[in-house]
Amino acid sequence: MKIILIGAGNLATQLAVALHKKGVTPACVFSRTEESARQLSERLNGVPYTTVIDHLPADGDLYVFAVKDSALPELLPRIPANWGLWVHTAGSVDKEVFRPFTNRYGVLYPMQTFSKEREVDFNEIPVFIEANNEADALLLCDMAGKVSGKVYRADSEQRKYLHLAAVFACNFTNHLYALCDRILAEHGLPFESMLPLIRETAAKVAQMPPTEAQTGPAVRYDKNIIEKQKALLSEPLMRDIYTLMSRSIHETHNPKND
Amino acid sequence: MKIILIGAGNLATQLAVALHKKGVTPACVFSRTEESARQLSERLNGVPYTTVIDHLPADGDLYVFAVKDSALPELLPRIPANWGLWVHTAGSVDKEVFRPFTNRYGVLYPMQTFSKEREVDFNEIPVFIEANNEADALLLCDMAGKVSGKVYRADSEQRKYLHLAAVFACNFTNHLYALCDRILAEHGLPFESMLPLIRETAAKVAQMPPTEAQTGPAVRYDKNIIEKQKALLSEPLMRDIYTLMSRSIHETHNPKND
Repeated sequence: MKIILIGAGNLATQLAVALHKKGVTPACVFSRTEESARQLSERLNGVPYTTVIDHLPADGDLYVFAVKDSALPELLPRIPANWGLWVHTAGSVDKEVFRPFTNRYGVLYPMQTFSKEREVDFNEIPVFIEANNEADALLLCDMAGKVSGKVYRADSEQRKYLHLAAVFACNFTNHLYALCDRILAEHGLPFESMLPLIRETAAKVAQMPPTEAQTGPAVRYDKNIIEKQKALLSEPLMRDIYTLMSRSIHETHNPKND
Repeated sequence: MKIILIGAGNLATQLAVALHKKGVTPACVFSRTEESARQLSERLNGVPYTTVIDHLPADGDLYVFAVKDSALPELLPRIPANWGLWVHTAGSVDKEVFRPFTNRYGVLYPMQTFSKEREVDFNEIPVFIEANNEADALLLCDMAGKVSGKVYRADSEQRKYLHLAAVFACNFTNHLYALCDRILAEHGLPFESMLPLIRETAAKVAQMPPTEAQTGPAVRYDKNIIEKQKALLSEPLMRDIYTLMSRSIHETHNPKND
């Protein structure tokens, strides 16, 4: 299978490296940035790369667009006409974005947070697949199955909610860690002292549903502690977050009667 | 050292079991609930227990109050007079709560979330110590060092902020997992598909500061995605959380000029 990879960012790199390890090295890499394209090419035993989108080979079997959502509308019309299957890797972009340009298209959405600094074990990453015809969906499942042990199918509607759920579980969670870090730093306390708690909080929900794992002043609705803690927060935005999260925890555990 | 343990809840149990494993078994256990007292006693090779606070031995070296914050004011006046060191295990209770009753007192605050269902490795748990005199602070450090590899000192003021930081890093974070679970369940998607992302998000901040680890639409301030995602949330409280967290992420990464 001849794979053409469009993009050389964190996700593109980790996907390409994972495929390469399984002997399915992309045949060509595109990035607008020469430096990124060259770096990724080097990690893939020097496969050809280009920074000119119109120069992409037209005989690919699979075109993987692993770029920022906003780059798609500009790139798609410039891809040389071809018979390959086109997929993107985005949570919140409908597969129909491809319809004006090709009649074989789909999505390969890996559920993970990628950074340059951390190599992740792709085999542990859930990958969500969809395509506009069943043969291509099976082809994608097969290809994704080479790098991940957890391949699911999800349509574009479900994928929007997957992405939304990930924003809560990853982006917002990480921001809570950042707020925690800020509170500690202001009082001369080390963030590292919080790591076992962070690890255990994450590990617990692999064993029990999060609503069962809930602890703390808000679930007990300990008004005394809640008010004292709010008074410690000098930043209005952090105080609002404290109030809203406490209310949401309380309402989850004490549903209103209709 | 003769330790008297007041409380038989999750924290009391895990602390007692950890001490027991290190050969420092509490000499007596108190709980208002016969069943809890008996169960904990059994896990400690059948040490004596009581449900009558006035019956506690008066010759203890260390009295550990591992009870709900709200139970302290009622219990303290009923402890038989003694020369031991009194400590509680609470995040948001000042050590001066003991002053009317004894002149040796302090705090032993383990930074972890405890549940009946999960045994935690106490050695990994940071423990924060303070006492009203240096000799007792050293005694507590020594004792805490038997069960934990991470003993820190923190005064009552710092401890309030530790507790507040833990509410963000644990209680609020767990609630985000619960909201994530709710979104997925409503769309027929399995929560387990989110576990690798949850694990990686937690693991990342052991390697880089949380502000550097931040990803997602809010840090890019991708208004298009933010508005689309808000529209997916039908519950007003969840939508408010989404808005507030996104704003807070954005302001953290784009500080206003004064």
